[in-house]
Amino acid sequence: MDAKAIRRIGILTGGGDCPGINAVIRAVSKTAMYDHGWECFGIEDGFLGLIENRIHPLHSADVSNILTRGGTILGTSNKANPARFAVGTNKLGEPIFEDVREKAAAHYHEHGLDALVVIGGDGTMSCAAGMIPLGVRCVGVPKTIDNDLMHTHITFGFTTAVETGTEAIDRVHTTAASHHRIMVVELMGRNAGWLTLFVGMASGADAILIPEIPYDIGRLCEFCKARKAEGKRSTIVAVAEGARPIGGDQFVQQTIADSPDPVRLGGIAPVLARQLEMCSHMEARSVILGHVLRGGSPSGMDRILATRFGHKAADLLAAGRFNELVVVQHGALTSVPITDVAEKQRLVPVEDDLVRAARAVGTSFGD
Amino acid sequence: MDAKAIRRIGILTGGGDCPGINAVIRAVSKTAMYDHGWECFGIEDGFLGLIENRIHPLHSADVSNILTRGGTILGTSNKANPARFAVGTNKLGEPIFEDVREKAAAHYHEHGLDALVVIGGDGTMSCAAGMIPLGVRCVGVPKTIDNDLMHTHITFGFTTAVETGTEAIDRVHTTAASHHRIMVVELMGRNAGWLTLFVGMASGADAILIPEIPYDIGRLCEFCKARKAEGKRSTIVAVAEGARPIGGDQFVQQTIADSPDPVRLGGIAPVLARQLEMCSHMEARSVILGHVLRGGSPSGMDRILATRFGHKAADLLAAGRFNELVVVQHGALTSVPITDVAEKQRLVPVEDDLVRAARAVGTSFGD
Amino acid sequence: MDAKAIRRIGILTGGGDCPGINAVIRAVSKTAMYDHGWECFGIEDGFLGLIENRIHPLHSADVSNILTRGGTILGTSNKANPARFAVGTNKLGEPIFEDVREKAAAHYHEHGLDALVVIGGDGTMSCAAGMIPLGVRCVGVPKTIDNDLMHTHITFGFTTAVETGTEAIDRVHTTAASHHRIMVVELMGRNAGWLTLFVGMASGADAILIPEIPYDIGRLCEFCKARKAEGKRSTIVAVAEGARPIGGDQFVQQTIADSPDPVRLGGIAPVLARQLEMCSHMEARSVILGHVLRGGSPSGMDRILATRFGHKAADLLAAGRFNELVVVQHGALTSVPITDVAEKQRLVPVEDDLVRAARAVGTSFGD
Amino acid sequence: MDAKAIRRIGILTGGGDCPGINAVIRAVSKTAMYDHGWECFGIEDGFLGLIENRIHPLHSADVSNILTRGGTILGTSNKANPARFAVGTNKLGEPIFEDVREKAAAHYHEHGLDALVVIGGDGTMSCAAGMIPLGVRCVGVPKTIDNDLMHTHITFGFTTAVETGTEAIDRVHTTAASHHRIMVVELMGRNAGWLTLFVGMASGADAILIPEIPYDIGRLCEFCKARKAEGKRSTIVAVAEGARPIGGDQFVQQTIADSPDPVRLGGIAPVLARQLEMCSHMEARSVILGHVLRGGSPSGMDRILATRFGHKAADLLAAGRFNELVVVQHGALTSVPITDVAEKQRLVPVEDDLVRAARAVGTSFGD
Repeated sequence: MDAKAIRRIGILTGGGDCPGINAVIRAVSKTAMYDHGWECFGIEDGFLGLIENRIHPLHSADVSNILTRGGTILGTSNKANPARFAVGTNKLGEPIFEDVREKAAAHYHEHGLDALVVIGGDGTMSCAAGMIPLGVRCVGVPKTIDNDLMHTHITFGFTTAVETGTEAIDRVHTTAASHHRIMVVELMGRNAGWLTLFVGMASGADAILIPEIPYDIGRLCEFCKARKAEGKRSTIVAVAEGARPIGGDQFVQQTIADSPDPVRLGGIAPVLARQLEMCSHMEARSVILGHVLRGGSPSGMDRILATRFGHKAADLLAAGRFNELVVVQHGALTSVPITDVAEKQRLVPVEDDLVRAARAVGTSFGD
Repeated sequence: MDAKAIRRIGILTGGGDCPGINAVIRAVSKTAMYDHGWECFGIEDGFLGLIENRIHPLHSADVSNILTRGGTILGTSNKANPARFAVGTNKLGEPIFEDVREKAAAHYHEHGLDALVVIGGDGTMSCAAGMIPLGVRCVGVPKTIDNDLMHTHITFGFTTAVETGTEAIDRVHTTAASHHRIMVVELMGRNAGWLTLFVGMASGADAILIPEIPYDIGRLCEFCKARKAEGKRSTIVAVAEGARPIGGDQFVQQTIADSPDPVRLGGIAPVLARQLEMCSHMEARSVILGHVLRGGSPSGMDRILATRFGHKAADLLAAGRFNELVVVQHGALTSVPITDVAEKQRLVPVEDDLVRAARAVGTSFGD
Repeated sequence: MDAKAIRRIGILTGGGDCPGINAVIRAVSKTAMYDHGWECFGIEDGFLGLIENRIHPLHSADVSNILTRGGTILGTSNKANPARFAVGTNKLGEPIFEDVREKAAAHYHEHGLDALVVIGGDGTMSCAAGMIPLGVRCVGVPKTIDNDLMHTHITFGFTTAVETGTEAIDRVHTTAASHHRIMVVELMGRNAGWLTLFVGMASGADAILIPEIPYDIGRLCEFCKARKAEGKRSTIVAVAEGARPIGGDQFVQQTIADSPDPVRLGGIAPVLARQLEMCSHMEARSVILGHVLRGGSPSGMDRILATRFGHKAADLLAAGRFNELVVVQHGALTSVPITDVAEKQRLVPVEDDLVRAARAVGTSFGD
Repeated sequence: MDAKAIRRIGILTGGGDCPGINAVIRAVSKTAMYDHGWECFGIEDGFLGLIENRIHPLHSADVSNILTRGGTILGTSNKANPARFAVGTNKLGEPIFEDVREKAAAHYHEHGLDALVVIGGDGTMSCAAGMIPLGVRCVGVPKTIDNDLMHTHITFGFTTAVETGTEAIDRVHTTAASHHRIMVVELMGRNAGWLTLFVGMASGADAILIPEIPYDIGRLCEFCKARKAEGKRSTIVAVAEGARPIGGDQFVQQTIADSPDPVRLGGIAPVLARQLEMCSHMEARSVILGHVLRGGSPSGMDRILATRFGHKAADLLAAGRFNELVVVQHGALTSVPITDVAEKQRLVPVEDDLVRAARAVGTSFGD
């Protein structure tokens, strides 16, 4: 099929919320309408809308004034893989999965779509990859607050999350200093520490704990005590939700077991705060920065990146380059096959430049 | 003793961190130095510094460029009541308390202080009240992030906390709408719901749960389901940490007991989210806005209020009106005896104007 | 006519943009619909829409999700007084005015409106007052970024402008200090200095020049030089656009006449900067904070105030209390006759508490 | 001389204020002290301090808690080129210039400095280049709010300026829409349009005028009228201070000449607003975002970039690679000879990816 034949495209957004999705939708749609004269259709709630045939036309007015808005005007869903879709439950209450890709593809064809722009993370790209064999042509736009998608140096939303997290720790700093406290601040990131590393460096956290560099609780404690001995008024620890102690989390489990009020702990930050309090004899408190990091209006830089991603996706379609994912490599926009990123994660290299710079200014990684 | 005799004053800050403390310190000091020619001394870490004789001169340069800074340049402490000071532990590890007020008063006289400006909440004012009989002349400046001090309509720091909380829920809104979720956001406030009420109203929360109005989990759940039935994409619940269900928290306890992962819960918000998820069959998530609300640079309005409070405190000293607390009543600055506020709390009246306005625009209080 | 007879109300917004207008519209409409079962109509672009019969129903969905949005969803206009409406121009190009109040009133009755909620400043209230004799029942909600409306201590939008202005001067501070400069920052306020006074105090401006207190350029210059002599790195001057020197602006005119590049000056701030540069031999720069102060999402506190104002307006209608204006007096919501505020302005009292507090912390008013 | 011989380094900051300078100073100093054991000296007010021998030791405490602060703790100056230094004035009042490089170099040696870290823009790098022949070893860190330095893709401070400008235009948007207005917003940039292009794209400006793409006032006016005809409520024009009309600024001059109040114009934005008002018969207003863009706390991303730049500068010194400038190329940190960037500017390529993306989403460049 010839690329020039494109007349109608569908747009869908999958996975977790991320600032800048609407900016991508706007850029794809406007480029499609103004530059190429294509019609645009919005698919509701990610692949779920494709499965359930909830697809509606997108007009110019629908994508006006959405550049600055957080969230996605199309809605999203986390658990709608057409290749393995939960259609009900068995007698034991377990989900029954079916492959509904043909149904999804039928809806795509029913609306006369010539291609899909799929905005999502590794899970969503995996779904998209599964649709390719059924004749659904896709172009992907990477979306992850964690910045852990393979083959792209950066994705939109990450910068906003960094700024939001940095502002939060800036606030925590003054409280820590006023009370001579250790403050443990938890950030999102189960496997990859990018967000914690960036926020930690930007906010001048004294220690940064990420999944890629297991920490030694004893050394961390010594670090806090040494700071106090030097007359420092406070210690800020930025910790990723997936950070783990050297030798597994036996110590964490023990702390929880010993806790007088275990049901009130929650997260790794409160556990760590309690541990540090016990071993350092300093007051420690914790804060968990959760969903606040995902939402809100995108930063200016993210609006620009999202606009460029959306424009590039339309460009790829126009050039007939299907089943590719827009990425940033060596500071420039380019693309890789969608199948290259599905279900993979990019971790922080232990010898990363950023880690080295952080260590040089005195940051502890607890190792 | 004649008020005109004042030549030296001490300043101390007690209780939790709160944006605007430094602005008060600056205004007291500058008014004292420039308008009255008094010398100023800073007492470190609240009444602890008075007990431990950590008192140093404050010069003009020390209080320059602190207007915008969060925290307190003097440091603070929560647990240093001279009338009942923990001097050690007995064999069972229990603290031994002593009345060290004479020692504290001796340090006050040793430095030739003629009065203290005491910046703090009800606990700190209680400490100050205890020093009065020993000849320590005090003027109080009310400080509480919770805005629950008796006899004053507002205190500095509250506006900043309202703005910070509002921004946070603004962010959460987009995520809730994108995912068709219930989001439960927890704010500080063990006994008083002012902060949650203000943030809830400012952010357009759909339900607001405060300690003063016990909620019915069943009605709250019906409210969420009704919103879904009307096609609303999300429901935001703002909940004070001290909110409680009608009939006590048996239901909460049961939820925790039933939880597959109790140690990861923490706070009332996650419990409530799980309850709502179970009864409404909608996705629910929670966020706890903790110490982030206490810190950071004060808002412009708080810097002004803090400056006025500090100026008024110096004015009271100059007028020989000791042992009074600066307050706002009927929109104007005035003062009341310090002893009137010690250890009391101002709660949200159930028929408050704000509650009525919130109900009128459709907000549920879960009752 | 009986108050209970209200079934339909119209809402209009006049005068300049101001953060929080939409929050008022939302609160009026929701209270009207939910609490009283009234129908609501939006009148477009202020009284212009009433004259031109551009009136449309407002439904619940129209006023959802507008709490946080700046501007007004109804549009506004500055120059549409029904009592003196420009219907065209004569041969000399001068406008021809006509009294079109009967036409406006006819549209009001045509839509079966029982009352109007008029959101605006002194000019808009003057228009409203002119409609009363024609049987148009009004309730007013005060709106002015300048906070200069008679009989109300505060209006919504002001707090947001204070915060925006404060943030801007916070930024300017670091540049001034890095360069050892005088920075002159101009704020809105032709007759009243409230905004400049509040922003000046909140940002720690070293000098504050407002229309109510004429300044002496010579003394201001001495003040700047004295600061330099004391080793201060910078001087920040906050100036209202309507500030004026003692003895009129002859000096200003001369400065402009002497300027090598007069067309590039603009505003009072650049003129003042040049004067100070010449007389103090220090570098001086200027910034004009114009329309940026009027726009954007309202602060949390303004959203609450606007919600309370809107709710109160509907309450007044329900109580049959027409032709009143919602105001804040002595810290509480109340109302006064609309005719009391039309075309009047509230100025900063020279002996205001705020002015006294500002002087006490060392601020110069140039007098 | 062997790189290992470094024991003492000097740090100086030149040119205009820019968010993130302190973060560079901190990173250089901490890396120097902690990683290499070097002593650090701060040179006050750029090369002026080297000429006037104002050089003082920098200790660890001096560079603590400065990561988040705007401005430069060392002070800066714009006009102190040692090769051509104004030492006084002749009888006609004209400056007399002298080459004082030997004096400056003598102070460098007097303090036993082994190298300088020079943080500044093209002018400052030119000064540094002039010191190299006298045995002063330099490493440069690029600093420009305009992002127009050759050989580096990005410099710190730029992201912060983009965010500040974007927030400002976000605010202006609501006012423009409420009043059905054209709003012209002027940003810094005399020769390069990077800041205006980024802010314009991030804020969804409808037209973007930059020095690199001369605009046709007639086409711009048609664009505004066409938007009005389509029912758009407003038009936002982002204009660089150095933007110029096709065929020079004769039209601009004429507009100024015809203006009833020329001394109140100032800047290109008010001129453009008046022109558009006249030709489109729509209301137009202007805002000039001046020094506000230069100041304030750096964004999180800029704090990280500045930290990396500072760390890299120390790394270059440690590796004995003198007279190089830290730059970002192809998304990675590297370096180029300082002499390569002195007095050169990087302009926006007319066929830049960003310009193409902006055009694709419907932005006019007025051409």
